Amino acid sequence: MALRARALYDFRSENPGEISLREHEVLSLCSEQDIEGWLEGVNSRGDRGLFPASYVQPPGAGFSYGGGALQPSPQQLYGGGYQASQGSDDDWDDEWDDSSTVADEPGALGSGAYPDLDGSSSGGGVAGRYRLSTRSDLSLGSRGGSAAPQHHPSGAKSSATVSRNLNRFSTFVKSGGEAFVLGEASGFVKDGDKLCVVLGPYGPEWQENPYPFQCTIDDPTKQTKFKGMKSYISYKLVPTHTQVPVHRRYKHFDWLYARLAEKFPVISVPHLPEKQATGRFEEDFISKRRKGLIWWMNHMASHPVLAQCDVFQHFLTCPSSTDEKAWKQGKRKAEKDEMVGANFFLTLSTPPAAALDLQEVESKIDGFKCFTKKMDDSALQLNHTANEFARKQVTGFKKEYQKVGQSFRGLSQAFELDQQAFSAGLNQAIAFTGDAYDAIGELFADQPRQDLDPVMDLLALYQGHLANFPDIIHVQKGALTKVKESRRHVEEGKMELQKADGIQDRCNTISFATLAEIHHFHQIRVRDFKSQMQHFLQQQIIFFQKVTQKLEEALHKYDSV
Amino acid sequence: MALRARALYDFRSENPGEISLREHEVLSLCSEQDIEGWLEGVNSRGDRGLFPASYVQPPGAGFSYGGGALQPSPQQLYGGGYQASQGSDDDWDDEWDDSSTVADEPGALGSGAYPDLDGSSSGGGVAGRYRLSTRSDLSLGSRGGSAAPQHHPSGAKSSATVSRNLNRFSTFVKSGGEAFVLGEASGFVKDGDKLCVVLGPYGPEWQENPYPFQCTIDDPTKQTKFKGMKSYISYKLVPTHTQVPVHRRYKHFDWLYARLAEKFPVISVPHLPEKQATGRFEEDFISKRRKGLIWWMNHMASHPVLAQCDVFQHFLTCPSSTDEKAWKQGKRKAEKDEMVGANFFLTLSTPPAAALDLQEVESKIDGFKCFTKKMDDSALQLNHTANEFARKQVTGFKKEYQKVGQSFRGLSQAFELDQQAFSAGLNQAIAFTGDAYDAIGELFADQPRQDLDPVMDLLALYQGHLANFPDIIHVQKGALTKVKESRRHVEEGKMELQKADGIQDRCNTISFATLAEIHHFHQIRVRDFKSQMQHFLQQQIIFFQKVTQKLEEALHKYDSV
Repeated sequence: MALRARALYDFRSENPGEISLREHEVLSLCSEQDIEGWLEGVNSRGDRGLFPASYVQPPGAGFSYGGGALQPSPQQLYGGGYQASQGSDDDWDDEWDDSSTVADEPGALGSGAYPDLDGSSSGGGVAGRYRLSTRSDLSLGSRGGSAAPQHHPSGAKSSATVSRNLNRFSTFVKSGGEAFVLGEASGFVKDGDKLCVVLGPYGPEWQENPYPFQCTIDDPTKQTKFKGMKSYISYKLVPTHTQVPVHRRYKHFDWLYARLAEKFPVISVPHLPEKQATGRFEEDFISKRRKGLIWWMNHMASHPVLAQCDVFQHFLTCPSSTDEKAWKQGKRKAEKDEMVGANFFLTLSTPPAAALDLQEVESKIDGFKCFTKKMDDSALQLNHTANEFARKQVTGFKKEYQKVGQSFRGLSQAFELDQQAFSAGLNQAIAFTGDAYDAIGELFADQPRQDLDPVMDLLALYQGHLANFPDIIHVQKGALTKVKESRRHVEEGKMELQKADGIQDRCNTISFATLAEIHHFHQIRVRDFKSQMQHFLQQQIIFFQKVTQKLEEALHKYDSV
Repeated sequence: MALRARALYDFRSENPGEISLREHEVLSLCSEQDIEGWLEGVNSRGDRGLFPASYVQPPGAGFSYGGGALQPSPQQLYGGGYQASQGSDDDWDDEWDDSSTVADEPGALGSGAYPDLDGSSSGGGVAGRYRLSTRSDLSLGSRGGSAAPQHHPSGAKSSATVSRNLNRFSTFVKSGGEAFVLGEASGFVKDGDKLCVVLGPYGPEWQENPYPFQCTIDDPTKQTKFKGMKSYISYKLVPTHTQVPVHRRYKHFDWLYARLAEKFPVISVPHLPEKQATGRFEEDFISKRRKGLIWWMNHMASHPVLAQCDVFQHFLTCPSSTDEKAWKQGKRKAEKDEMVGANFFLTLSTPPAAALDLQEVESKIDGFKCFTKKMDDSALQLNHTANEFARKQVTGFKKEYQKVGQSFRGLSQAFELDQQAFSAGLNQAIAFTGDAYDAIGELFADQPRQDLDPVMDLLALYQGHLANFPDIIHVQKGALTKVKESRRHVEEGKMELQKADGIQDRCNTISFATLAEIHHFHQIRVRDFKSQMQHFLQQQIIFFQKVTQKLEEALHKYDSV
């Protein structure tokens, strides 16, 4: 009767009610139904509690996730392992959640070419948003026949001259990359939708956002509805380009994330801070989440493509609380957006008459793949070290300094038994020194919040990006493979040169976009790590200066002894 | 066949070849013969090795040590538990050690009133020096009959009107305090031998040394003799009042210590740094011992009575290496000194017509007893904390900072895979930061030598003083008891008032000396702890400033990124 699942990753419980998992560990599930992305079960050590559904492989699941060479991150797997009811971090059954989304509207599904992966367990109504680009396949299907005549998914192999990928779970297929490369994508690209890749000093770059902005996230406030039956946290967002505050919940961010992940196949959409089952209204968690959202927003706003896209602007500017109608309108528009997946590639505009050298591109991409692997390893290592270092400062370091403080105070108390005047000053000075060491212990315990926590926040964000890139690389690699295939077909006389040139042109477009995205990654990486390292060191310096000051105060007490 | 012994104290092995003991633990001895104060045995955990003979009770030993209310220190017990062959830290069979000492000369022993405690195991020729005042009893005995007519140790009780202490191991008896109080001591006190107690603002004080001096201890040098068969370390001493360097070995210090401990019953002679069985020629040990000797010398020189006494001046000024004869002459003179023990009290000169209130003295002494107990506890606690704190910095703290350094370097190495120019500066800066954290780890590991070690050295010295005071207090308490007894005897008509007044006068002298010694202790305590706390804090400040500087250097590297 007991359902079993296997842990895909290590998971360390951080809150009461959660249990830790070890990779490969087999768990007994209390139920196959997740609760807002969390499952309840018993681990091999007999602990019962919650863990993220995405960290385990469901019983009997045998398909592979995506096509990336690197391990997919837990976030990528949301809905891939166990379907999480996405965006459901708060409560679901309120007025917004009740309204069905486009994916559930029968008319929008059209002649769904691919069976809904959710099949058995989607029931919740909004399941499946996190699955990369499933919907883009669907919408592509719904437009099938008009501008993509070769697109006969059910019998693709027999009718296409360039073989179609049979793996329907391949990111290359799901993202729409294959359809685009094969010339099957079509759509009307408005001028405003055009995304330009330009040639910069280091190669392809996204054209800069001519209207750069930033956005603050403040005042996390607990709100209730249904006469207090439902509670959630609302954040105040103020974008610099409008200066008009809007209020958003985590689930709105989550919804936005799903839109963006679906729309942009070769752009690394920053991951949202992690979901959490318990303690959602605790101050520490809210503060941590807010910081995570600020990081997220910062990366969104600094991405030339993401920053300018309609759905993000809608999210940033629509006053949902006062104009419910406008909000819903924008929301539906985004959900009905046709320029997603394969069609997204149509919006790409590359430098005129610029063709990239295929081998050079391949070598660059391979180099970047190595880079991401190594950076992922070292980020993991640094994160582990930072975590341990923080823990040691909060526990061991604090304890050691306070034990010294206590011993000094003990000595001073002993000395106070000698009531002679010439001894009193020393006694007080030693007592003061004891207090200073106590205070230094506290400083050590408080310090990680100032310096190590932000480092770990940054690492988490970058671990998200690094987890995105295998899919991005996979799309580009798939396109390259198609080019090679088509050339062979031409040599074998099985394909017209013109058609092969088309494939190569479209692959070129994907390569431009991929390299632009990689360049953007390096740019923000250098920017973020520079400023974070500076911040870290500045905070450490301030910390040690504070310690020194405490000691100087204590030393000063001996002057008059 | 196996000899067994019980551990009197915890002993922590600090060098290869030593084993740890736990209080009350029963040990198997490999031999009853100690090797320079160390025994070899097997502890209850089966470890075989060396431990200080003074830390164990010999099989069948049942007598108590001294009469102090506090636990006697290991040093006090030297020769009480297992007889250490004193002063034998280096080698013994050289020209000096071959020459017998006064105690071994049959003529000097006279009619030894008390059997030699060493009895069975003294054989070595110079055993027994550490035993507090045994020799003073002997020399008193040797002078018996002339000025101490009531002194018939064997039949004391029957002939004395004030009852004699039957416990021949009582410090009061051994120190000569009892004999003095009962008016049995006599001797010709030269003007130069007079020791003055004066009344200062805080009560009785030792008269200040009119010729204060200090003495440096430098250049520990390994010397050999007998064509390299014997090795020892020689230290260069330069007293400020002569500016003439003399060279001394640890065993010379040890000999001096024995002379002083014997001579001055109510003065706390600072203990020498501990003996050590193994690693005597290792640099660390030599440096540690030198520091211990410096502390010792500092306390010797700042004590008005000890600093001026002949044997110490002989030690400081006689050029033993060039004038062997003068050295031996002074050495023999010291060993024949008659003004030791009971006779020492004769040399005390108190303020004229100043009688102390007995109750006030008793209350002061009791207060000080409490003080020493509490200070001993807190010094032990602080020592433990300092030791642990040092250990943590050398191991844990260093490791944590270096792990951070390593992780930063790992990140920098990953980043170096990106060869673009705009990334290079950051990579170097992060690598530099990694190195800075490595260096900070080293700073942490090096730090205890700068600040905690001196604190522990000071504590060790004071633990020695604190271990001396129970005996000192015991002598004073013994004298007080005699006064009370004599008063009762007068009331009962068993004693003449004049005789009782004599007892009270002599007790007054002992009280003056004891209070002067207590005052001196408080004075040097305040001086030493003030300067040590200042030194500690200054070193800590320098340390944290160094850390800050490292971090500032690292931060600076990001300026040009």
